[in-house]
Amino acid sequence: MYEITVTPRFGDIDGLKHVNNNKIVDWFELARNDIFRFFTPNLSLEDKDWKLILVHNEANFVNQTRFGKEVTILSYILRVGNTSFITGDEAWQDGELKAKGKSVVVNFNFMEQHKEPIPEDVKEKLKEHLISEDEIANDCFLNKGKKDKKN
Amino acid sequence: MYEITVTPRFGDIDGLKHVNNNKIVDWFELARNDIFRFFTPNLSLEDKDWKLILVHNEANFVNQTRFGKEVTILSYILRVGNTSFITGDEAWQDGELKAKGKSVVVNFNFMEQHKEPIPEDVKEKLKEHLISEDEIANDCFLNKGKKDKKN
Amino acid sequence: MYEITVTPRFGDIDGLKHVNNNKIVDWFELARNDIFRFFTPNLSLEDKDWKLILVHNEANFVNQTRFGKEVTILSYILRVGNTSFITGDEAWQDGELKAKGKSVVVNFNFMEQHKEPIPEDVKEKLKEHLISEDEIANDCFLNKGKKDKKN
Amino acid sequence: MYEITVTPRFGDIDGLKHVNNNKIVDWFELARNDIFRFFTPNLSLEDKDWKLILVHNEANFVNQTRFGKEVTILSYILRVGNTSFITGDEAWQDGELKAKGKSVVVNFNFMEQHKEPIPEDVKEKLKEHLISEDEIANDCFLNKGKKDKKN
Repeated sequence: MYEITVTPRFGDIDGLKHVNNNKIVDWFELARNDIFRFFTPNLSLEDKDWKLILVHNEANFVNQTRFGKEVTILSYILRVGNTSFITGDEAWQDGELKAKGKSVVVNFNFMEQHKEPIPEDVKEKLKEHLISEDEIANDCFLNKGKKDKKN
Repeated sequence: MYEITVTPRFGDIDGLKHVNNNKIVDWFELARNDIFRFFTPNLSLEDKDWKLILVHNEANFVNQTRFGKEVTILSYILRVGNTSFITGDEAWQDGELKAKGKSVVVNFNFMEQHKEPIPEDVKEKLKEHLISEDEIANDCFLNKGKKDKKN
Repeated sequence: MYEITVTPRFGDIDGLKHVNNNKIVDWFELARNDIFRFFTPNLSLEDKDWKLILVHNEANFVNQTRFGKEVTILSYILRVGNTSFITGDEAWQDGELKAKGKSVVVNFNFMEQHKEPIPEDVKEKLKEHLISEDEIANDCFLNKGKKDKKN
Repeated sequence: MYEITVTPRFGDIDGLKHVNNNKIVDWFELARNDIFRFFTPNLSLEDKDWKLILVHNEANFVNQTRFGKEVTILSYILRVGNTSFITGDEAWQDGELKAKGKSVVVNFNFMEQHKEPIPEDVKEKLKEHLISEDEIANDCFLNKGKKDKKN
């Protein structure tokens, strides 16, 4: 599991005085930098180097995220397929789960414009961050509200 | 069905030289202004006036959206529940479906901080924009690539 | 002078319930698409095609821009130099000037990574949109709508 | 002087494969959170608590900011006036100055909708972060990292 800390920016707040939903999805993207490095260690965006394309994104917004306090973003892997993988993402503030997301990312060859199998060594790295739905349920959703003590 | 036209901005483009996925989700939000007006005709953001909170957002990105050409965003209603409704959203460019989203929006009383039933007259307005999954399938996904004739 | 109309998006609003300042600067960028086309008619972002780099940006925010009403963005040219030009940008809502910006854009050869003179025919096109500081005062600040008595 | 570290996000990159200019201005806003706390210690956005409004923003973009490496944002005060103050902002990556900005922020009473004098104790706090133009030249441009030989 990867963990980063982000600080809400004044402009991230929307008319309801909480962080705009879509900003949280931006933070989920940010938290995936370490996963992107499995495919492109130096994060070079050249067509010959970059390998990933996002094909699906979703999030549930379960509580309002506020300005003035840091937010912890957790990222893990839910599934490793042949040419794609699924990430899981969570945003926590004040010991409370705020949002929970999922994304499907495809290993794409930009030079030849087609998807291709994820190399075996990269699959192994991804699998080190694999978390089962059971674990997620226990860590996050079921205990929500009980002022969670995540790791 | 609502339709708006948006123009990609230089800064909307990401390192892959297509429009960043999350920007398309912003456009989906923009396209919902007319639906928001069913609840708050003048779009006042005061707690006593504003009624809506987004609890779920998802999108499939099926083709790359490019800079330099306008994008059509379609918005419709997939389901009207007691306290919430589901929107469907599509982004089209050059006669090709680029992304397809769905969001769940709850009718929320910000003064008292709880969800509440959608008024009957608003439900009626929402239902005028209701589209069945069958219609979507026929209009959008199946005919994709055949230079769709959406109206 | 170029003019586009933009619709504020729910997420463009910030904690003060007006449009976040930096979003207005995004709109100014959007309004320059037609000027970008003088340099790259099809707006191709390939290194061999794209020519422009922004080196300075500034804006004064003179009144609050609100959600729920359209905004008109005006773009014009303040100066044409040898390798660069200066744009002027204005945001109007409800007949009132909301923000006024300026940017310096350089003609850049991305293949060879150096700035280069703006071709004569492009200079001519830019000059057709040239507005003197006097005209700005007259056209925009003093007369437009004659409604704005900002202090 | 305040210093924060930010990590460029994939979606912050634009069609030129560097960080979009306007994102850097967002980071400058983020870096001002500690200065905002002088006025509203808990960063509450309620009209009765929040005090600040941005009236001018500008930035020079002197070098391209890349994906894949952290960016240091420096914030300091350039001038403290009666009802407003001026911030200075810098973005550094790889020991090289990437962008340098300035903003004018006004102390505003949102309940009564007028600007008002900055309290003396807040002025004192701001002045602790005051940097003279001379120091900027010495501290930042000439010496920092001694690596940047831009143009």
